[in-house]
Amino acid sequence: MASSWGQQLKITLFGESHGPAIGVVLDGLPAGEPLDLETLQAFMDRRAPGRTPWSTPRKEGDRLSILSGVYRGRTAGTPLCMIIENTDARPRDYGQVHKVPRPSHADYTGRIRYRGAADPRGGGHFSGRLTAPLCAAGAVCKQILARKGIEIFSRIAELGGISDVPTDTANPDLTKLRTLADKEFAVLDDGKGREMVELVEKARSQGDSLGGIVQCFAVGIPAGIGDPVFGGVESRLASLLFAIPAVKGVSFGDGFAACRRKGSENNDPFCLTAEKEVRTLTNHEGGINGGITNGMPLVFQVGIKPTPSIALPQRSVNLETISEETLVIEGRHDPSIVPRAAVAVEASAAVAITDLMLTAFGVQGWGGTYHV
Amino acid sequence: MASSWGQQLKITLFGESHGPAIGVVLDGLPAGEPLDLETLQAFMDRRAPGRTPWSTPRKEGDRLSILSGVYRGRTAGTPLCMIIENTDARPRDYGQVHKVPRPSHADYTGRIRYRGAADPRGGGHFSGRLTAPLCAAGAVCKQILARKGIEIFSRIAELGGISDVPTDTANPDLTKLRTLADKEFAVLDDGKGREMVELVEKARSQGDSLGGIVQCFAVGIPAGIGDPVFGGVESRLASLLFAIPAVKGVSFGDGFAACRRKGSENNDPFCLTAEKEVRTLTNHEGGINGGITNGMPLVFQVGIKPTPSIALPQRSVNLETISEETLVIEGRHDPSIVPRAAVAVEASAAVAITDLMLTAFGVQGWGGTYHV
Amino acid sequence: MASSWGQQLKITLFGESHGPAIGVVLDGLPAGEPLDLETLQAFMDRRAPGRTPWSTPRKEGDRLSILSGVYRGRTAGTPLCMIIENTDARPRDYGQVHKVPRPSHADYTGRIRYRGAADPRGGGHFSGRLTAPLCAAGAVCKQILARKGIEIFSRIAELGGISDVPTDTANPDLTKLRTLADKEFAVLDDGKGREMVELVEKARSQGDSLGGIVQCFAVGIPAGIGDPVFGGVESRLASLLFAIPAVKGVSFGDGFAACRRKGSENNDPFCLTAEKEVRTLTNHEGGINGGITNGMPLVFQVGIKPTPSIALPQRSVNLETISEETLVIEGRHDPSIVPRAAVAVEASAAVAITDLMLTAFGVQGWGGTYHV
Amino acid sequence: MASSWGQQLKITLFGESHGPAIGVVLDGLPAGEPLDLETLQAFMDRRAPGRTPWSTPRKEGDRLSILSGVYRGRTAGTPLCMIIENTDARPRDYGQVHKVPRPSHADYTGRIRYRGAADPRGGGHFSGRLTAPLCAAGAVCKQILARKGIEIFSRIAELGGISDVPTDTANPDLTKLRTLADKEFAVLDDGKGREMVELVEKARSQGDSLGGIVQCFAVGIPAGIGDPVFGGVESRLASLLFAIPAVKGVSFGDGFAACRRKGSENNDPFCLTAEKEVRTLTNHEGGINGGITNGMPLVFQVGIKPTPSIALPQRSVNLETISEETLVIEGRHDPSIVPRAAVAVEASAAVAITDLMLTAFGVQGWGGTYHV
Repeated sequence: MASSWGQQLKITLFGESHGPAIGVVLDGLPAGEPLDLETLQAFMDRRAPGRTPWSTPRKEGDRLSILSGVYRGRTAGTPLCMIIENTDARPRDYGQVHKVPRPSHADYTGRIRYRGAADPRGGGHFSGRLTAPLCAAGAVCKQILARKGIEIFSRIAELGGISDVPTDTANPDLTKLRTLADKEFAVLDDGKGREMVELVEKARSQGDSLGGIVQCFAVGIPAGIGDPVFGGVESRLASLLFAIPAVKGVSFGDGFAACRRKGSENNDPFCLTAEKEVRTLTNHEGGINGGITNGMPLVFQVGIKPTPSIALPQRSVNLETISEETLVIEGRHDPSIVPRAAVAVEASAAVAITDLMLTAFGVQGWGGTYHV
Repeated sequence: MASSWGQQLKITLFGESHGPAIGVVLDGLPAGEPLDLETLQAFMDRRAPGRTPWSTPRKEGDRLSILSGVYRGRTAGTPLCMIIENTDARPRDYGQVHKVPRPSHADYTGRIRYRGAADPRGGGHFSGRLTAPLCAAGAVCKQILARKGIEIFSRIAELGGISDVPTDTANPDLTKLRTLADKEFAVLDDGKGREMVELVEKARSQGDSLGGIVQCFAVGIPAGIGDPVFGGVESRLASLLFAIPAVKGVSFGDGFAACRRKGSENNDPFCLTAEKEVRTLTNHEGGINGGITNGMPLVFQVGIKPTPSIALPQRSVNLETISEETLVIEGRHDPSIVPRAAVAVEASAAVAITDLMLTAFGVQGWGGTYHV
Repeated sequence: MASSWGQQLKITLFGESHGPAIGVVLDGLPAGEPLDLETLQAFMDRRAPGRTPWSTPRKEGDRLSILSGVYRGRTAGTPLCMIIENTDARPRDYGQVHKVPRPSHADYTGRIRYRGAADPRGGGHFSGRLTAPLCAAGAVCKQILARKGIEIFSRIAELGGISDVPTDTANPDLTKLRTLADKEFAVLDDGKGREMVELVEKARSQGDSLGGIVQCFAVGIPAGIGDPVFGGVESRLASLLFAIPAVKGVSFGDGFAACRRKGSENNDPFCLTAEKEVRTLTNHEGGINGGITNGMPLVFQVGIKPTPSIALPQRSVNLETISEETLVIEGRHDPSIVPRAAVAVEASAAVAITDLMLTAFGVQGWGGTYHV
Repeated sequence: MASSWGQQLKITLFGESHGPAIGVVLDGLPAGEPLDLETLQAFMDRRAPGRTPWSTPRKEGDRLSILSGVYRGRTAGTPLCMIIENTDARPRDYGQVHKVPRPSHADYTGRIRYRGAADPRGGGHFSGRLTAPLCAAGAVCKQILARKGIEIFSRIAELGGISDVPTDTANPDLTKLRTLADKEFAVLDDGKGREMVELVEKARSQGDSLGGIVQCFAVGIPAGIGDPVFGGVESRLASLLFAIPAVKGVSFGDGFAACRRKGSENNDPFCLTAEKEVRTLTNHEGGINGGITNGMPLVFQVGIKPTPSIALPQRSVNLETISEETLVIEGRHDPSIVPRAAVAVEASAAVAITDLMLTAFGVQGWGGTYHV
């Protein structure tokens, strides 16, 4: 637990926002899987800060260094460690943090949990920056899953109260979904995207921030993957997704909306395709029944709260003088973390699905060619 | 994983809906904790079927037998196994299930996952009946936590679209919350409860079902409990809650509503009590920052879909003849599982919080008296 | 950890020597595997007490009741729970135990670990009786492994200083090994066995006890099973074997004898069979290189200390009066636990190998027929 | 599992012998523990190659870089990642390894396990070089344990058949044990040590290698640490120790010798000290009863096989031409790995005891001062 996750594929995150480096170890990957390093880095770039007006101006190339687990361009099967050096750390921005905790950040709880010994700069190990190695892990898994015919997409379904267009979760338009990765703002309706960007810029100018909802789709997962009870797809995905800072809700299929419907409206009837394959007419369940995949697209939503780092003055407490104080956060921050969180959500899905597939098939059952 | 959960307190569920018995093993409990068996059974009775008009007419006393781990009325510290014999099993009701899967049930996915070998009667291991041993585990933990000053409450926050009254999550009214356990219908506003009951009865008469939302409160948890990243309170609780059949969403604090707010509206400013203790003015975060408790009430919501077992005819597929077929489900079912799911949610919270506390303090750090 | 073990196959033991029942849950078994209940019980009988002059006169039928996870004679794939009721418990024999701990038993350490709250009767959860459910788990796994061509054998390699005949570990005589299960005293050389029995009877008449060494063989495991570093075959097997009470040493292949040899004597050179298959000429390594199976027989030894329960007076301390005292243990005990421990060792090997195979191949990669 | 280990303290090893770097992540350490980097490096130097005539001439400074988890000279409580760059890698020495596997190495099993994709150079992830990050983890734990009054010592108890002097395991001479860390050859009787060195040099001149036995002592562990059944001290330690390459046996207390004794000779009678504290007169059990510490010194032995890398010609198989072949191993190797393995054994003990203590007391129960 804590900073390790997974049953057959174990990932371990480490690092602090302003320490020497952040990184991840993936243990249990199938061996012999080719890794395209450019594609890997391109996925990282989707999350990297400083690239768009609506992300923090902190400049980090987020260049991955692979320390182990890759041999001649393929996964070796042994633990794969990737690190990212922190190059643009400005720890002085955070001098006050361990005295006057920022509201709705982990400064206060981290101080108690770690008895005042943890690195408070930029949130330390609690920083959103830890999603960079999570994305690196996901980028590796995405390449491996693609070879099994599994594709994963994420979009900004809602931001600042504005919704992207609804989509047919039973028959998603893959051509459209495949365009999302290349967009600066990952929505299906670019008009709605422009409205969201305007809201984000307005929030920034006001020293405020906005939350939103990320929606994620995974297609091509075979039916029968997942375990009952605590090993279900929802349980495993949720435990990973709630590790992304700012996530406050996770729902599958139609989620909380389903809770307002009748059974006759919400059930997904089974039908046959022309090829006599079993599927469901609708996909209110998001591709999961009883924790196990049913072969329909896996669909889930992740609620992202507004970035707690805002420029407006806030009420807090000085933990040394034990007195109330007004806090003004300096440093560099995203007025909305949603666009970058979407990439972390997509990465988490890739990691979780790889672990689920490896639980079902094992590293030997996974197959693949001997390349020596 | 699968049917085991937990880091320092491990629970393992077993059993099928119509097999000889269902049960649970709790491994890692602190030793020497007195267990009141009447209180234990009273908690089980809140979940048991056949007690109210809106639950399935299946009659199960759900009498707990303790096989191990209790000595002279106290936890021995060794694995505590409790079983419940299935007395009113009517397996013939489910004869068709493994041929024509029920929509939005686990019949189809379970058949694939277990290669046709699992017990299909009443959903087998996927049945909501498995929440009975989960409740037994939670009932044990609730008694242990109460002695540490931790209380847990659950209510039906919404059912069939009707909402119970809002409540102040920063300063919950404990007197009112303490009445919930004794109510036949666990709402704060009994008028709203009667409206919900009417809706449930109407749904039943129509052969249909209703979903809803359960809200859970835990007060008295010290600040600093939980681990970063994957070991956070949200990750651990969510992985347990999604094991309850019919759960499609989990959110903490203000959940998805928070995602529509600005940071300045959603942040919880720190303040001092008259006794100079740190707390927050509001509790939008539900008592958790960065995965770690902050000393405020833990608040979360669980979305429960409408029971998939409805009496109305539904479209499905006969998996033997590979042809579409109309299915009419017989058997006995709850027109809304929400009232009974609330008890399972409360039990899950008790299990998760006990595990979190044991992770922080250990069995030796837990304390307690030597009784010999 | 604690009373749960395994990665893809998780087993959980519960129960106390003189409580209502002892049992085991196996979670993660492949589905659809036929279980022969007579063969299951026959394996249990090899371990059961009261059957031979050299085992405790306690009479326990050790009749297994299956509570879950078996449907129509096959594994359902869901958690399989088996229990054994304690029928011949005589708790009065152990009245003194929690006051005056028996030397080299867990009475003292258990009292501290569980703060005096654990069931002290017959060692409680620490009792050798807990090997009964471990044997039940192993008996299930043995049937499943046999269908994959994997056979496991155990023998008393040494008892009271007398050794059974050496055997060729590279080319074991399967015909002879297959006779072991039916012998009252599992040695290859029955003459040596009779010498051992005489020693055991002499020890019993003297109120004393004897230790020995169990050797275990597993043939038919494919090469390439196991994981590096902490997931190696030795690590996983050893963590299981040291859970058997009285085990004080575990060694693989030639074990400690290898440590007295030169590399040129101890290395296993590779060669080809007539069918051009790779194997090793010798098997000093016991079928494992770097934690991974190499296709040769898996061979390991388990050192069993003399039963600590002896009839002779012993020095101890009264923990209530805090004074030294002479202790005379009454109750019923084995003058040598080695013959019964051998069955538990064999069972542990079956459990560990099944977990290793499931880690490599997964439940889906395992194969098997759909029986519906 | 695989390359991660631990319950409350999780360590994850990564790296290949000739890759860019090797390293370790420690997750779950108590926060605020001062780390002395010089002492850390000094422990590493005890294991480092190229320092003595009897170790491989490969020159590696084994300089630790700390990437995370340390703040202002103390453990932050967050994952501590340390890496060691591989500076003197000479991969060409190993060109043949993936074609003609070295006897009793992991070349063949690794090739099958990883489908030919793993880095074969120097054994890759299977290399004894991976004990360097294990030692780094142990060095951190040793400093933390020392502050709790727990000291750990290792010695070469036997090498090439020559034994160091026996020692009183009930009352070990701490003054003597404390000298071991500074010795070039960690024996109590330096005369015996010189005999061993002569044997090692002779073996090297013959192109051969020698095995031996390491003995480890840990004093100061409180009674009551450890869990029953699979969570016992022996199970946990053994699963860690068998991860050290070349380990073929692990025994506790008097180990296999105890198996040749009578109960009356092997039991450890309880007695009282002058201060009325409970202890045992002898320590045949090595400080553990029923998997739980009893307050006496923890004593165990680890059997190390002769280094499989020998200069003498050996029989093997060319896996590409499928024909038998004579193999001559070049590269640089230790004629006996025992002296360096002793350091890894000591490190493993430190890691395991820290995990056991954290399981008992938790990170919060651990105590320590708030330093901010």
